[in-house]
Amino acid sequence: MIIGDDPILLTPGPLTTSSATRQAMLRDWGSWDAGFNRITGSLCRDLVDIVHGGDTYACVPLQGSGTFSVEAAIGTLVPRDGKVLVPQNGAYCQRILKICKYLGRAHVELKIPEDQVATPAAIEAALERDPSITHVAQVHLETGAGLLNPLREIAAVCQRHGKGLVVDAMSSFGALEIDVRDTPFDALIAASGKCLEGVPGMGFVIARKSLLEASQGNSHSLAMDLHDQYVYMQKTTQWRFTPPTHVVAALRAALDQYLAQGGQAARGARYRRNCETLIAGMAALGFKPFLKPEVQAPVIVTFHAPADSHYDFRTFYEAVRDKGYILYPGKLTTVETFRVGCIGAIDEHEIHNAVDAIARTLETMGVRHIAPQESVG
Amino acid sequence: MIIGDDPILLTPGPLTTSSATRQAMLRDWGSWDAGFNRITGSLCRDLVDIVHGGDTYACVPLQGSGTFSVEAAIGTLVPRDGKVLVPQNGAYCQRILKICKYLGRAHVELKIPEDQVATPAAIEAALERDPSITHVAQVHLETGAGLLNPLREIAAVCQRHGKGLVVDAMSSFGALEIDVRDTPFDALIAASGKCLEGVPGMGFVIARKSLLEASQGNSHSLAMDLHDQYVYMQKTTQWRFTPPTHVVAALRAALDQYLAQGGQAARGARYRRNCETLIAGMAALGFKPFLKPEVQAPVIVTFHAPADSHYDFRTFYEAVRDKGYILYPGKLTTVETFRVGCIGAIDEHEIHNAVDAIARTLETMGVRHIAPQESVG
Ligand SMILES: Cc1ncc(COP(=O)(O)O)c(C=O)c1O
Ligand SMILES: Cc1ncc(COP(=O)(O)O)c(C=O)c1O
Repeated sequence: MIIGDDPILLTPGPLTTSSATRQAMLRDWGSWDAGFNRITGSLCRDLVDIVHGGDTYACVPLQGSGTFSVEAAIGTLVPRDGKVLVPQNGAYCQRILKICKYLGRAHVELKIPEDQVATPAAIEAALERDPSITHVAQVHLETGAGLLNPLREIAAVCQRHGKGLVVDAMSSFGALEIDVRDTPFDALIAASGKCLEGVPGMGFVIARKSLLEASQGNSHSLAMDLHDQYVYMQKTTQWRFTPPTHVVAALRAALDQYLAQGGQAARGARYRRNCETLIAGMAALGFKPFLKPEVQAPVIVTFHAPADSHYDFRTFYEAVRDKGYILYPGKLTTVETFRVGCIGAIDEHEIHNAVDAIARTLETMGVRHIAPQESVG
Repeated sequence: MIIGDDPILLTPGPLTTSSATRQAMLRDWGSWDAGFNRITGSLCRDLVDIVHGGDTYACVPLQGSGTFSVEAAIGTLVPRDGKVLVPQNGAYCQRILKICKYLGRAHVELKIPEDQVATPAAIEAALERDPSITHVAQVHLETGAGLLNPLREIAAVCQRHGKGLVVDAMSSFGALEIDVRDTPFDALIAASGKCLEGVPGMGFVIARKSLLEASQGNSHSLAMDLHDQYVYMQKTTQWRFTPPTHVVAALRAALDQYLAQGGQAARGARYRRNCETLIAGMAALGFKPFLKPEVQAPVIVTFHAPADSHYDFRTFYEAVRDKGYILYPGKLTTVETFRVGCIGAIDEHEIHNAVDAIARTLETMGVRHIAPQESVG
């Protein structure tokens, strides 16, 4: 893979993208032009196909970061008198709760430790405790720790109870299997700059057409009104407001590569190889992942910080960056950690070299005690 | 100017950007990295400097298109019990009214014909009629027709009456003079992809720091809460949610060129040359601008559609596009028009060639009667 001299991003996004994806940004597109609007249309169709959404689902793209699309989905697709259950095991679940508060949507938090999945049983119990709940807002892959929640089983519970399901699949979409035929949902949110390996700048919501069509008047915001964006696009093929044309073109290029490389199965397999290489390499240095293997998603791995007084994250981060690899800070409240991403246009050789850079950095820093002082498991 | 083979965009945005600006997108930046956050910081400082905002104003960047920043400014900086006067002479003023409706902010529309400016006298009268008005939301350059409202005089009226002023300067910022020292405002909104000649994907709000600091709890939206974005950036130097890193890097490159070329005065002079070349060339073909010269801004010109049965916009548009120039449809409700932009990384030679392409197209189409059937002036 062609990387050049720029550091490799081992983060949950922005990621290292391919040269072909970045080159797609060398052209200026007019937002009114049919050629550009064909790109938007083909993107939306391909994104629906990734989840096998057929004719029942539509994809509505939205300007901004992923959070904008999460907020838009909740604001547009959960009616104003709805009530949202949020199984909460990390930072992005907390963000959904914050969005509900801003929007004045009634909500119930189902608290779960950040190293444990949201179980279908716990969700079912919460739904039975409070029949006024109308929707479940579920983070598929909680990027805070890197944990994979059992989405298919959760979707089955929602369907059985007749509750709507809104899925934040920001860091799983495209790499991990999500199939509406066995995992029905109302809406699923992801963004350009994650496992599809585009550049950041737009998100999208894949939603049931019937719900989109019935959602007029729900949204608290003009800019984030998915109903309005959907209806306008259906009518004109254009975005309502200026689209991030270069980001859209880059996502088209990234999706072309995605499909040519074998789609979701191939993407997932590459990330799994990256993740295994990472965990094995780090284990050889004495590092222990925060999560148990059975809940670890092959996207980003949280490691316990070394239990050594010579360690501090910023020095470590900067020294590893100077060797060409960008790590990510931890996002946990209870234990000191750091994170290493396995996603982007990279393969296991880059991961191998990154582990090597980490090893050399720790040696220079004089960090010897790597294993965490007390085991969590 | 290096343009390559892509069509030149004569629109209000996205624009034709320079090759150096697009090349700046060939690198992937980590959003946590100090190098990237220095770019954000320097951008914000330079943007405040363009309006001579000194230490009294701060710039808060926001993901999304320009409309997102307009909505964010109104939602964050107009208190929930505020009341907004909207002088209305075009499509973007109407959009502000729509935002006020979504947000539930009380508002008063001051209707003005779309070929006439918002006069300070009319605004003063409206403020006197309704003392409960707290803010004026003024579009500086109404891109719908291309009309320039007298911002300095309007700011003086607002100051005299102790009213807040929120300025949508989307299509004027950077090219036309705006100086807080003689044009005080609460907040001014613009975006990356207009007269600064960056690529689209982010907006920004230049606001009085004291107002930003006092605006906690106003916003209807998490993603568009400028107070939250401001406070987080002050503390961390980072964006709250994933920034459009490539768009940010392109804006930095575009601003470097802007400053090297002589800043606002030089940018405005180039656009004025473009505009004069355009109007003169089109006049020679028989075209009449919709606006009188004294209210025409040198950014985008609305022309009456030819009064000839052989003319239709789509055929005209496509034929001119095939010759290398992208025009823009009109946005007026009363008369049939089309628009031609004078902004972007282009000079009067490209404008000259565009007029030539228009002339050849009309000839091929057999369009002979260009002048509008009845004069408006
Ligand atoms: C699960 C999840 N949800 C939401 C987001 C927010 O996306 P953004 O930073 O693009 O707003 C992220 C970002 O990493 C994420 O991983
Ligand atoms: C005056 C004015 N306001 C607002 C906007 C909206 O910007 P965007 O299309 O980026 O949302 C525009 C766009 O041209 C504009 O010219």
